[in-house]
Amino acid sequence: MSSVTGNKIKISVFGESHGEAIGCVIDGLPAGYEIDFEKIKKEMKRRAPGNDIASTPRKEKDEPHIISGLLGGKTTGAPLAMIIENTNVKSGDYENVMTVPRPSHSDYTAYVKYGGNNDIRGGGHFSGRLTAPLVFAGAVAKQLLETRGIYVGAHIKKIGAVNDEAFDYNNIDKYQLCEITSKAFPLINSENEVKMRSEIEKYRCEGDSVGGVIECAAVGIPAGIGGNMFDTLESSLSSLLFAIPAVKGVEFGLGFGFASKCASDVNDGYEVKDGKISLLSNNNGGILGGISNGAPIVLSVAIKPTPSISKPQKSVNLKTLENETIEIKGRHDPCIVPRAVPVVEAAVATVLLDSII
Amino acid sequence: MSSVTGNKIKISVFGESHGEAIGCVIDGLPAGYEIDFEKIKKEMKRRAPGNDIASTPRKEKDEPHIISGLLGGKTTGAPLAMIIENTNVKSGDYENVMTVPRPSHSDYTAYVKYGGNNDIRGGGHFSGRLTAPLVFAGAVAKQLLETRGIYVGAHIKKIGAVNDEAFDYNNIDKYQLCEITSKAFPLINSENEVKMRSEIEKYRCEGDSVGGVIECAAVGIPAGIGGNMFDTLESSLSSLLFAIPAVKGVEFGLGFGFASKCASDVNDGYEVKDGKISLLSNNNGGILGGISNGAPIVLSVAIKPTPSISKPQKSVNLKTLENETIEIKGRHDPCIVPRAVPVVEAAVATVLLDSII
Amino acid sequence: MSSVTGNKIKISVFGESHGEAIGCVIDGLPAGYEIDFEKIKKEMKRRAPGNDIASTPRKEKDEPHIISGLLGGKTTGAPLAMIIENTNVKSGDYENVMTVPRPSHSDYTAYVKYGGNNDIRGGGHFSGRLTAPLVFAGAVAKQLLETRGIYVGAHIKKIGAVNDEAFDYNNIDKYQLCEITSKAFPLINSENEVKMRSEIEKYRCEGDSVGGVIECAAVGIPAGIGGNMFDTLESSLSSLLFAIPAVKGVEFGLGFGFASKCASDVNDGYEVKDGKISLLSNNNGGILGGISNGAPIVLSVAIKPTPSISKPQKSVNLKTLENETIEIKGRHDPCIVPRAVPVVEAAVATVLLDSII
Amino acid sequence: MSSVTGNKIKISVFGESHGEAIGCVIDGLPAGYEIDFEKIKKEMKRRAPGNDIASTPRKEKDEPHIISGLLGGKTTGAPLAMIIENTNVKSGDYENVMTVPRPSHSDYTAYVKYGGNNDIRGGGHFSGRLTAPLVFAGAVAKQLLETRGIYVGAHIKKIGAVNDEAFDYNNIDKYQLCEITSKAFPLINSENEVKMRSEIEKYRCEGDSVGGVIECAAVGIPAGIGGNMFDTLESSLSSLLFAIPAVKGVEFGLGFGFASKCASDVNDGYEVKDGKISLLSNNNGGILGGISNGAPIVLSVAIKPTPSISKPQKSVNLKTLENETIEIKGRHDPCIVPRAVPVVEAAVATVLLDSII
Repeated sequence: MSSVTGNKIKISVFGESHGEAIGCVIDGLPAGYEIDFEKIKKEMKRRAPGNDIASTPRKEKDEPHIISGLLGGKTTGAPLAMIIENTNVKSGDYENVMTVPRPSHSDYTAYVKYGGNNDIRGGGHFSGRLTAPLVFAGAVAKQLLETRGIYVGAHIKKIGAVNDEAFDYNNIDKYQLCEITSKAFPLINSENEVKMRSEIEKYRCEGDSVGGVIECAAVGIPAGIGGNMFDTLESSLSSLLFAIPAVKGVEFGLGFGFASKCASDVNDGYEVKDGKISLLSNNNGGILGGISNGAPIVLSVAIKPTPSISKPQKSVNLKTLENETIEIKGRHDPCIVPRAVPVVEAAVATVLLDSII
Repeated sequence: MSSVTGNKIKISVFGESHGEAIGCVIDGLPAGYEIDFEKIKKEMKRRAPGNDIASTPRKEKDEPHIISGLLGGKTTGAPLAMIIENTNVKSGDYENVMTVPRPSHSDYTAYVKYGGNNDIRGGGHFSGRLTAPLVFAGAVAKQLLETRGIYVGAHIKKIGAVNDEAFDYNNIDKYQLCEITSKAFPLINSENEVKMRSEIEKYRCEGDSVGGVIECAAVGIPAGIGGNMFDTLESSLSSLLFAIPAVKGVEFGLGFGFASKCASDVNDGYEVKDGKISLLSNNNGGILGGISNGAPIVLSVAIKPTPSISKPQKSVNLKTLENETIEIKGRHDPCIVPRAVPVVEAAVATVLLDSII
Repeated sequence: MSSVTGNKIKISVFGESHGEAIGCVIDGLPAGYEIDFEKIKKEMKRRAPGNDIASTPRKEKDEPHIISGLLGGKTTGAPLAMIIENTNVKSGDYENVMTVPRPSHSDYTAYVKYGGNNDIRGGGHFSGRLTAPLVFAGAVAKQLLETRGIYVGAHIKKIGAVNDEAFDYNNIDKYQLCEITSKAFPLINSENEVKMRSEIEKYRCEGDSVGGVIECAAVGIPAGIGGNMFDTLESSLSSLLFAIPAVKGVEFGLGFGFASKCASDVNDGYEVKDGKISLLSNNNGGILGGISNGAPIVLSVAIKPTPSISKPQKSVNLKTLENETIEIKGRHDPCIVPRAVPVVEAAVATVLLDSII
Repeated sequence: MSSVTGNKIKISVFGESHGEAIGCVIDGLPAGYEIDFEKIKKEMKRRAPGNDIASTPRKEKDEPHIISGLLGGKTTGAPLAMIIENTNVKSGDYENVMTVPRPSHSDYTAYVKYGGNNDIRGGGHFSGRLTAPLVFAGAVAKQLLETRGIYVGAHIKKIGAVNDEAFDYNNIDKYQLCEITSKAFPLINSENEVKMRSEIEKYRCEGDSVGGVIECAAVGIPAGIGGNMFDTLESSLSSLLFAIPAVKGVEFGLGFGFASKCASDVNDGYEVKDGKISLLSNNNGGILGGISNGAPIVLSVAIKPTPSISKPQKSVNLKTLENETIEIKGRHDPCIVPRAVPVVEAAVATVLLDSII
């Protein structure tokens, strides 16, 4: 039961979807770093609803307001606290959730865990809206990483039956990552956009939703970062990635693709180039023995279809213990994958900064 | 850089593959529980090398010796410390590793991180042998879980091109799990054994190795276990699973399969049966919002091919900074998947006990 | 560098003395507890400046504003976030601190640690004002403890040369604690108030300040609470008590008084009374082997004189590296001890709740 | 319930007084440090029983045996595991403790907490013997600190009615600390030894025991070490010091002496000397705002009289719930203070290394 994460940099997230505000406290940031708020707002906007036809029409400005930890635009070393007011709240839409849990949502498990005391309006503290503070923290982390030459970027790898190209593990650089993260609909090959959008549109029209995969890369991480045994980079990255609602799978490099491979095909050999050691391939996604090997870190994340759909679904009444059919009204994303892209980047950036500092 | 894991139950693992001994300290176990050592030895044997034609011929008895924390066969509440002597050590086999890192192993990253001071004999502290203490801890956890009606079991889901059946998410029970874990080669459908063994044999003959997937389930977990936000069951489970060497992917329920699905097909509805709420399907693998929903927990883990193969591979000499070709001699598993099955179970049992206590 | 504390209940404190606001996030509170805000305001007021002639004339309403974690007045299980606006800020008073560190303050050490980037207005994040969120957290903890029959209260044991009576370790009860905590100037024997106040007044007139001792007790804690080895109740209590600015000593029961005693005089024997085991004396302050023994927990805390005084003091100019004399203007407490009483109680309540939950 | 301590360097202690062995696992040590075992044995011997007429006649060689984490005498970066066999165990001496708890010991509280399952022979995991692994960890920490010019040393400040001189806070250097720690009976003024020994002897003859105070100093710590708010150096130091059995008070610098002082007398002013900032006095014991100020760290620790005495004491029978009188036979220290000196140093060294690394 913990909304606090991190070792050297601790992030504490608070708030509910339909409460007064959401926010976070970031403790342990080094002092003296100038924060570029335009960059932060840009990241926040990438995640915010209502920016794209493919997302929920609910609009939130997601304007982060700094309460502490900054002086003259620079970090002070004290906790950086930030809140975002919830401006566009229509609680009426969710009133029935209290008694009839939405399938594949946290409604039922939260009800059991908190004895019915949790705020269920809009998912409360479990809402995807709570990823906004994480994106804020990630945007700060990205800036600090960039001063060290580390860049993080992600793209939509798959939605439903439509795939984008995958990263070429061996040839990712910061320019490619910057280009991708600047796209409204982040794909490696933008020619896939039309097909993907129409895939989403198809499910929206049916009152349904669809899942996907996000692929994320980070370049510039020197070899030797991360811990052994229980503190592997894979452990800390996956731990925070699985904190993102709807994430149901995480893999590094070839990931599940390793299962049908032999070592002689996928082992990453070494060579000396210009007096430096580098890898001949990057099937391990930049991590060996839990520690970075200097190659780009590459990982993929599976996102399940948004469970809120308007089609009728079977549920139960928690009060009367009778079977019920539920049709979820309100403003929902037919596909959360595009908006989850900056959240995945934020999680990765946050963990990398914590590991490298 | 941490060999300590857990919140309420803290496990500290120590030792090197070719050192004097390996072991662990388990802190926080409740007092007064009788430990059945026959069961523990059975679990240890499942992981130990040399038990099966498909594994390395190196033989280790892996006899756990208790140093503290038990009195009259019962836990005392004080730390349970255990060591396993390394009896069958042939360090000569690994002498060349110091200068030429084995591809896809931790050799290079550990070299960078520890400045060449780490024990590289047999992989040192990074060796798969260090999973033996985890299996011990898991065996203890399993016993405590079973007193609460919770059972954990795993099977080989895939090796190379050969698949076993998957768990029927909705119909797993403790009898099925007990049956599977008692098999020397754990499959749901034992008719797949011949094909899988010949798949492994094929790679062994070529001096190569092959990867696979392990699927693990846990039954009997009541709804309401696990935390929200950063302490989701998926976060803690994946974090420990990625601490197992060779694990490169973790997914829950449908996992990456969600990517091509629509919500109306995969949302898990509810029904009332015998006055109790239960799920109509279990595509989420028993976890919603990071919290158990009462259905079996089901997850899959991707295992990469053992990187140690006798085929020639490209590497570098860390001292001379020249390219080299490496052929790894010694005793290696052509497929680590069968021996990793009890390790995956141990990781799952350990996390579940820590979450439920 | 951490403003997060606690195990099961994690408290994250943020803000600076002269920033926009201060506050805290409390994570891990059990769901369904009704919070009485009148009680919280009462506790906040006990600490707030300007309530008593003996404190600084700076007035702050210290009105806690809840942002999340409450619904219908009850805890939801989600993080309870609270902010207090800084309304009465006169930064001009502190302008010189940047270059000339105030003796015995954190100015110099924070300057070194944060490279001069920390907010030094009013002490910034190091200000005693940051104990307000702790008092808030303590007030919440007290309410939850009281539902379990546990009560915490403290009094001024000593200021300068004037002493109050000490607790009679063996005869403290909740009525005595409630009576003491309701006093504006908390003493066991209120006849000492005049003498203590004139002691403080003496130092104020001289532009000086004076130290003291606070004694705190907690009743109703059952035997068996706390951990062994590194998690002793004394460890966790002292750890949080030393987080209060100006605290320089912590002792349990006889504490430093044990040094000149023999065991036969101070060992706490047992007796059976009404079929129950109780202690014949309580020199150990209710804790043995780090674990509560059922007797009241009693501890004392040494508070140093407020370092901000108007008398001239020797300091240095951090920029020119020349010696300087500093005279601190502004609004300061000639004795912080009375206002520190509810802070000590809050720290004790917070730790006890975390240990008992 | 945790026998694990530390942030970057985690120490896990295990074992029982009359079990097979005791030991510890130290995780997070930097790689490549040569460990001098003669120095470690010297520290272990300072704490070991039977070395001095003033301590218990029980003899234990306390020979630390390294299991892992060292190669060629150097740290590898992997966990350093160490065990000490218990060679001189006479469990018969303690057989009655099971039913009649020894006053002021952990017997009763451990009985309640562990439901009577804890190992009570010789105090089990609560025994002072478990400070041996801490002394080992401290000896390792001291060596690493000394490579950075940091030295730790302590002396007996008081036993019963006899006092040693206190450290001259402003004039401590590494030569004084090395001299003191090399003494068999560590005093600043060795002329006090005869009086102190006769004080101890007096209580021994009466079958009683006596308490005392240990004063510890550390020199060479640069300004800027330690954290703000909840991670103050005082918090981490006191937390580990209170984990030492019999410690009932901790104070920094003047500590409780501050209570009767005014700021103008005790504030530590600054001056510039040889172009560097230094302190004019050190009443704060080297810590301001929780962070080191560059002056020596000075702290005192109160030790209660060893509770095991042969005089008759009032206790109860836990089984029959009747009052009983207990006379404790066996080998006990009439004064634990001399043997606790290296333990206090070890705790301080351990925390400083963890803070500085």
